Amino acid sequence: RSGEMAKLTQLIDNEVFRAYATYTTIVLLKMMLMSLITVYFRITRKAFVNPEDTASFGKGESAKKYLRTDTDVERVRRGHLNDLENIVPFLGIGLLYALSGPELYTALLHFRIFAGARIAHTFAYLIPLPQPGRGLSWAVGYAVTISMAYKVLKTVLYL
Amino acid sequence: RSGEMAKLTQLIDNEVFRAYATYTTIVLLKMMLMSLITVYFRITRKAFVNPEDTASFGKGESAKKYLRTDTDVERVRRGHLNDLENIVPFLGIGLLYALSGPELYTALLHFRIFAGARIAHTFAYLIPLPQPGRGLSWAVGYAVTISMAYKVLKTVLYL
Amino acid sequence: RSGEMAKLTQLIDNEVFRAYATYTTIVLLKMMLMSLITVYFRITRKAFVNPEDTASFGKGESAKKYLRTDTDVERVRRGHLNDLENIVPFLGIGLLYALSGPELYTALLHFRIFAGARIAHTFAYLIPLPQPGRGLSWAVGYAVTISMAYKVLKTVLYL
Repeated sequence: RSGEMAKLTQLIDNEVFRAYATYTTIVLLKMMLMSLITVYFRITRKAFVNPEDTASFGKGESAKKYLRTDTDVERVRRGHLNDLENIVPFLGIGLLYALSGPELYTALLHFRIFAGARIAHTFAYLIPLPQPGRGLSWAVGYAVTISMAYKVLKTVLYL
Repeated sequence: RSGEMAKLTQLIDNEVFRAYATYTTIVLLKMMLMSLITVYFRITRKAFVNPEDTASFGKGESAKKYLRTDTDVERVRRGHLNDLENIVPFLGIGLLYALSGPELYTALLHFRIFAGARIAHTFAYLIPLPQPGRGLSWAVGYAVTISMAYKVLKTVLYL
Repeated sequence: RSGEMAKLTQLIDNEVFRAYATYTTIVLLKMMLMSLITVYFRITRKAFVNPEDTASFGKGESAKKYLRTDTDVERVRRGHLNDLENIVPFLGIGLLYALSGPELYTALLHFRIFAGARIAHTFAYLIPLPQPGRGLSWAVGYAVTISMAYKVLKTVLYL
């Protein structure tokens, strides 16, 4: 058992893998924050989708009026879905990239730019910033993921 | 080759990693179940979204009436999306947590509570239970993931 | 450091793991392609959802008419969400399966069929093909993931 543990510890002690673990945790926590922001807007805008969520506002018609969509809530939800669409590929391709033996400097560059781009994307979506603010931040994160995918396929390709 | 295989086997023989593998597979299978429930409600409620899915009901207006939203279908789809939003962070942060050398007892506690909370969340959403049933089950899974993220960042932080 | 690197390299040199890395990268890239197709349809169909995205079309009512849903855009978005719902389980369960020591031949069969099924699903959704084209391609990918989950649980079960 302690021999196996030692091996696992070695994996987590690798600097590239530690960097991957750090930035992946950061972007996943950022994505999770979208849930809290959605809840915040649903409560402050009184805009719910499930009848059972409005039960505390009374019964019948008085509660039914809170079953509605709100532009702020929908905006946060779109940002959340965009996170899922982009952070899931980073999670998978980034892990394989970290295991493909990149230079520490290059790997850090990829991880830092991706995390920065996704944080910028959230600000651009929620403020909202005029375009191409949101579009550019999305494209940068996308390009970083493509770059990592290229390295993975070049290193491991086995069809 | 057999040397490499031995090493891989050692990873999967580690008890914490085996627990992670077990509970991750369980919650992912639970999430996949949402697809089947959606299909079941679409067929029994006759509520479809793609015109090609209603072709067996005839042509023209007779089939067009089945292109509609149904509250039960939409409820399952919201539960499915909520699974994606919460199980993706568990998948990534949980893997890094399992590799960060936690005590077996602590790790099992995290994994079991998370899996239990997500299964409870599905029942709370689909029955549906009155609030705060669904809210609490969501919050418990969320808190477990935050706790694992804290351990990961404390162990590996490399910015 | 070089000792750790050697160990990581061994993981990525394992043939089953290399096959997993290759096919996972391919299906994640395919999923990312859905973002580009969505952007393409949003621009060619002039159908946007965020007011800031239509600013280049002028102000007031002249731009507001482009804030609308379009059937082609919605179709791509449904395909994208279906990818998320099915590729996320493959990402997680496939990784654990690759680490559970399957035969190379069996593993390749699983990965190839899954990737083929998801690519077929995208064509079936976007052309669109008559049913059961899309339904079958979805079911094949689903069944492959269940088969891998069964192998994982049989190998590692630790509750």
